[in-house]
Amino acid sequence: MEVTLEEIERASVRIQGVAVRTPLLRTIVLDDRSPLWLKPENLQPMGAFKIRGAVNKIAALSQAERDAGIVTHSSGNHAQAVAYAARCHGAQAVIVMPDTAAAVKVESTRRLGAEIVFVPPSRREERCAELARDHGYTSVPPYDDRFVIAGQGTIGIEIADDLADVATVLVPVGGGGLISGVATAVKERSPSVRVIGVEPELAADAAQSVQRGRRVAWRPEQTGRTIADGLRTECVGHLPWQHIQRYVDDIVTVTEHQIRQAVRVLAGRGHLVAEPSGAVATAAYLACAESLPPQGHTVAVVSGGNIDPDRFRDILDGPD
Amino acid sequence: MEVTLEEIERASVRIQGVAVRTPLLRTIVLDDRSPLWLKPENLQPMGAFKIRGAVNKIAALSQAERDAGIVTHSSGNHAQAVAYAARCHGAQAVIVMPDTAAAVKVESTRRLGAEIVFVPPSRREERCAELARDHGYTSVPPYDDRFVIAGQGTIGIEIADDLADVATVLVPVGGGGLISGVATAVKERSPSVRVIGVEPELAADAAQSVQRGRRVAWRPEQTGRTIADGLRTECVGHLPWQHIQRYVDDIVTVTEHQIRQAVRVLAGRGHLVAEPSGAVATAAYLACAESLPPQGHTVAVVSGGNIDPDRFRDILDGPD
Repeated sequence: MEVTLEEIERASVRIQGVAVRTPLLRTIVLDDRSPLWLKPENLQPMGAFKIRGAVNKIAALSQAERDAGIVTHSSGNHAQAVAYAARCHGAQAVIVMPDTAAAVKVESTRRLGAEIVFVPPSRREERCAELARDHGYTSVPPYDDRFVIAGQGTIGIEIADDLADVATVLVPVGGGGLISGVATAVKERSPSVRVIGVEPELAADAAQSVQRGRRVAWRPEQTGRTIADGLRTECVGHLPWQHIQRYVDDIVTVTEHQIRQAVRVLAGRGHLVAEPSGAVATAAYLACAESLPPQGHTVAVVSGGNIDPDRFRDILDGPD
Repeated sequence: MEVTLEEIERASVRIQGVAVRTPLLRTIVLDDRSPLWLKPENLQPMGAFKIRGAVNKIAALSQAERDAGIVTHSSGNHAQAVAYAARCHGAQAVIVMPDTAAAVKVESTRRLGAEIVFVPPSRREERCAELARDHGYTSVPPYDDRFVIAGQGTIGIEIADDLADVATVLVPVGGGGLISGVATAVKERSPSVRVIGVEPELAADAAQSVQRGRRVAWRPEQTGRTIADGLRTECVGHLPWQHIQRYVDDIVTVTEHQIRQAVRVLAGRGHLVAEPSGAVATAAYLACAESLPPQGHTVAVVSGGNIDPDRFRDILDGPD
């Protein structure tokens, strides 16, 4: 069964004091277009929306469960969000990372007090499940979990509260946890709002899944081509897929050039540092005029800002 | 007489719906240091805190005054804030600009519906006063005005509301309107909080004024040397000077290198694009450990983000 609006409303209370209540920013206005509002989740602790789901999951555990510890597998934004949320709740976190993970990400996760367990990339999920079973840890999945989805959905509640006449919400799609929560909150509040997912055309498994009416997986060598490294997930999760079918109106794709252009616009006009994955929704607004509604207020979720400084400079230097 | 807390509280109501209620972001934590919270005013409409004072001034006018029109002189953030605030209130704005103003700033102010009047740089104040007298326009000064100061002070109310145990607030100082409002709000709420102004050492007129106990003016060829172009004001205003004497604990200075470094840190760790003037308070936190309190929560006001893209890339490319 899908996550309910009530579960998301409970999450809104649980995340207070850890996640930031981000404002809506009306920073980008194109001539003759509906205004664009940005939801800057790159300003969250650890630089991404992931903190919402992680802290909702951990805050909802019993004290005994928190005392037993938390485990997850990730080398990206999810790892740091779980480590941060665990620390806020006094829980020990164990993060399973591929032994190929970048040293800076390992170090920043360790600085948050998490224990790192290295494994070959292919063994991440298995090792995570073993640790949960052997030590009684609670696993915090990156997207296929109703507490995680409910946490991400708090973004949708805030959008509906802040902009009563929102017409369209654009949301990046990787594993699908973010759009699942946001779409549920927004549609249950106002069924007429359009919720549109955005993917890189080089990792368009969700768009293809919607076209075919069934979950389609792309191979890592396909999704690995996009600069939007947070959206290289090969397939949306089981629970997210239910939400996408029920609540999401459409999924559009953007090119690598459009993603880079959006990173530049977000810096220049929005004064925000966004990672490529975080910029795809803005890219869709900037580039896809014909596939988006011609009128009404549009919100783009800027999902994260964790971009390597060299890559950021390279994108700003454009053209590409 | 100084602006009162009550005037600032009234401003908080007036600016709602135009200025953004910016969150406090705990994004930068140095080892063994008190945490730093950022107040990201670069996310305001037109990219700077200036919108708060401008909209408070214009919203407080009578309908007849608004119908008569608004005038100001500026080529920077203040011009665009006044043009934006006037448009929000259906008032016509006339902006006196030096005929040396950058074309992009002229164009973006004009796009907001303002009329631009060009004059030689030395005639700006005089022409502004003439227009006010001849046409019945209301002048919106950049800092030497109690409604403008009260508007900027709403930042202090938000800081006090969001972080009850704040120990130190760091604020950029140019003409002094921003720190006047912030210091009044913070000190009237909690007299024990330290409010510290920050200036470039190349434009340290306010720091020198505080040392000498009287307003000291620096020459344009002196203040013009700093990269922080928003803080090149030659002297703090009359009304700000009263507030600084009464409410501000100290004014510290930062080097050009420290300012550039802070712009990099704000981008890398804070995910914010700050202009050099907007980064000086963060620079003081990063560089001036010995002159700042060793413990307690510190807030740095990131006052603006309007930086030329080429300059931003140049700073990111460092070292400098």
